[in-house]
Amino acid sequence: MDKVVVQNLEANNQRDLSRLITQVENDNVTNNKTLDKLFKKTNQAIRIGITGPPGAGKSSITNELIKYYINSDQKVGVIAIDPTSPFSGGSLLGDRVRMNQYHNDESVFIRSMSTHGHLGGLSRKAQDIGDLLAIAGKDVIIFETVGVGQGEYEIANVADLSVIVLVPEAGDEVQLMKAGLIEIGDIFVVNKSDRKGSEQLTERLKSLVNINRETNRSIFNTIAKEGKGIEELFNGIIKKFTELEDDGNLLQRKIDRYKVRVKNIIQNNLLSEFWTSNKKEKLFQATKSLKDLKKSPNIAAKEIMQAIDL
Amino acid sequence: MDKVVVQNLEANNQRDLSRLITQVENDNVTNNKTLDKLFKKTNQAIRIGITGPPGAGKSSITNELIKYYINSDQKVGVIAIDPTSPFSGGSLLGDRVRMNQYHNDESVFIRSMSTHGHLGGLSRKAQDIGDLLAIAGKDVIIFETVGVGQGEYEIANVADLSVIVLVPEAGDEVQLMKAGLIEIGDIFVVNKSDRKGSEQLTERLKSLVNINRETNRSIFNTIAKEGKGIEELFNGIIKKFTELEDDGNLLQRKIDRYKVRVKNIIQNNLLSEFWTSNKKEKLFQATKSLKDLKKSPNIAAKEIMQAIDL
Repeated sequence: MDKVVVQNLEANNQRDLSRLITQVENDNVTNNKTLDKLFKKTNQAIRIGITGPPGAGKSSITNELIKYYINSDQKVGVIAIDPTSPFSGGSLLGDRVRMNQYHNDESVFIRSMSTHGHLGGLSRKAQDIGDLLAIAGKDVIIFETVGVGQGEYEIANVADLSVIVLVPEAGDEVQLMKAGLIEIGDIFVVNKSDRKGSEQLTERLKSLVNINRETNRSIFNTIAKEGKGIEELFNGIIKKFTELEDDGNLLQRKIDRYKVRVKNIIQNNLLSEFWTSNKKEKLFQATKSLKDLKKSPNIAAKEIMQAIDL
Repeated sequence: MDKVVVQNLEANNQRDLSRLITQVENDNVTNNKTLDKLFKKTNQAIRIGITGPPGAGKSSITNELIKYYINSDQKVGVIAIDPTSPFSGGSLLGDRVRMNQYHNDESVFIRSMSTHGHLGGLSRKAQDIGDLLAIAGKDVIIFETVGVGQGEYEIANVADLSVIVLVPEAGDEVQLMKAGLIEIGDIFVVNKSDRKGSEQLTERLKSLVNINRETNRSIFNTIAKEGKGIEELFNGIIKKFTELEDDGNLLQRKIDRYKVRVKNIIQNNLLSEFWTSNKKEKLFQATKSLKDLKKSPNIAAKEIMQAIDL
């Protein structure tokens, strides 16, 4: 990656931004000094995670929020993460449609990131891409992800604030059983709230979300397709950010996240230093047949660690 | 842990088995030489993962399978993993009832393992507990887990064969959207198959499960509470094991699992060697305020790695 590309990134050149994001996706940016220098800029952006089950209306809500941010003179970057499944072929297409809508608008950048089912490294990559967006001058970064597996937890780890979108319909119990989902949310949205069952879901949520938590967490009712309830949600997000800032939680989350990043980099470095081709070969030799597997993994690990690299 | 306890374990003393499992749960067994020596015994047991959404009837199916295994003179160990949530308080109680049923039967051991929402290390612990059960002479080890998050993936990593239990009811789409769930299953069960929607779910499954897979994966219809369809499922599991053995997949899975274990042990050792109190302090100092976080994580990591321990 040359210096010009990075300069263009800083100047919010969307094409070079796109190119750099692709490099992060393909693991081609790891230790770039020019980017390292620009890192201080990344704290200026706020990061919002929006997650929930398929069909809950996350994209519609994001689209509506974008309008409010533009009206407040904020630049917005959206990363839509799609844990590719045979059932959700439509979402990438939908994002392309969304992108075209803002094609000539430098204040909005929308990008889909397909994980092809591999969630490993998702939070690291999402974080790095968030940094690129921040360096390009985006004020608000939205991570939008389908909550069908561990994706939502990964995203909660990269956002300053998590919005959980639910929808009154079949499967509410399964949605709610995802206790983790309840735990990670700062703000809850019952979308499509003109539907039957909306009130019950809202009531159920109310009784659940404030258990075992000191802070109050808000629930909003929206009909995103009609733009209803979005202003309240938008103001709710702003209010929540102020609260998180005032009570020190925002700083704490940033610190925690930063620590995890530093630890992960160190871990990757230690492991890549350790796993020389000699040691890889030793592991391969130690696991060739069922007979080899009779040795305890503790002992196998010890032997590999004691192996001397020539 | 003294040698006597381990000897008692080998003799299938269920009380000492229970005690050792608690030690693994609490991370108190890590590098035990007596257990290392007994490791060769662990390959003798087969390991089955049973997973699916809450209320699908996993416990009932496990209970029915236990009967068939007992009738075939097999000893069975069950680990029921409960990603504790405010909504599933009943399952631990249910397991206690199940345990009492076999209280004086040395051929069955059932144990609940609560994760308290922390899935980290689950597969490692489940694996270690599986080893203890195998050393105690169990022929069949069943890992039963609620598929509400990443738990099912963790369990697919420790079992030789995965059974996915689904149920015709509200939320089918959400169930099926979990593409990963479809990917990890070797055998699928549509339980409560007297319910409305059972045929559609079975048809939907049929069209999904054999996409992109060379081997055929079977679907069984059961009504576990009435014992219906269990014999077919039991025979299907045996058949699948034979297939996996014949085509080398069973060995490959064991090798892959073993490699992951060895790698994890090495990783833990490297990290615990690295993170001296001096380096921990450096990380703490480097992340005290928002101003500190202006440095790129790459640079912070580098500085900590270059720090010299006195």
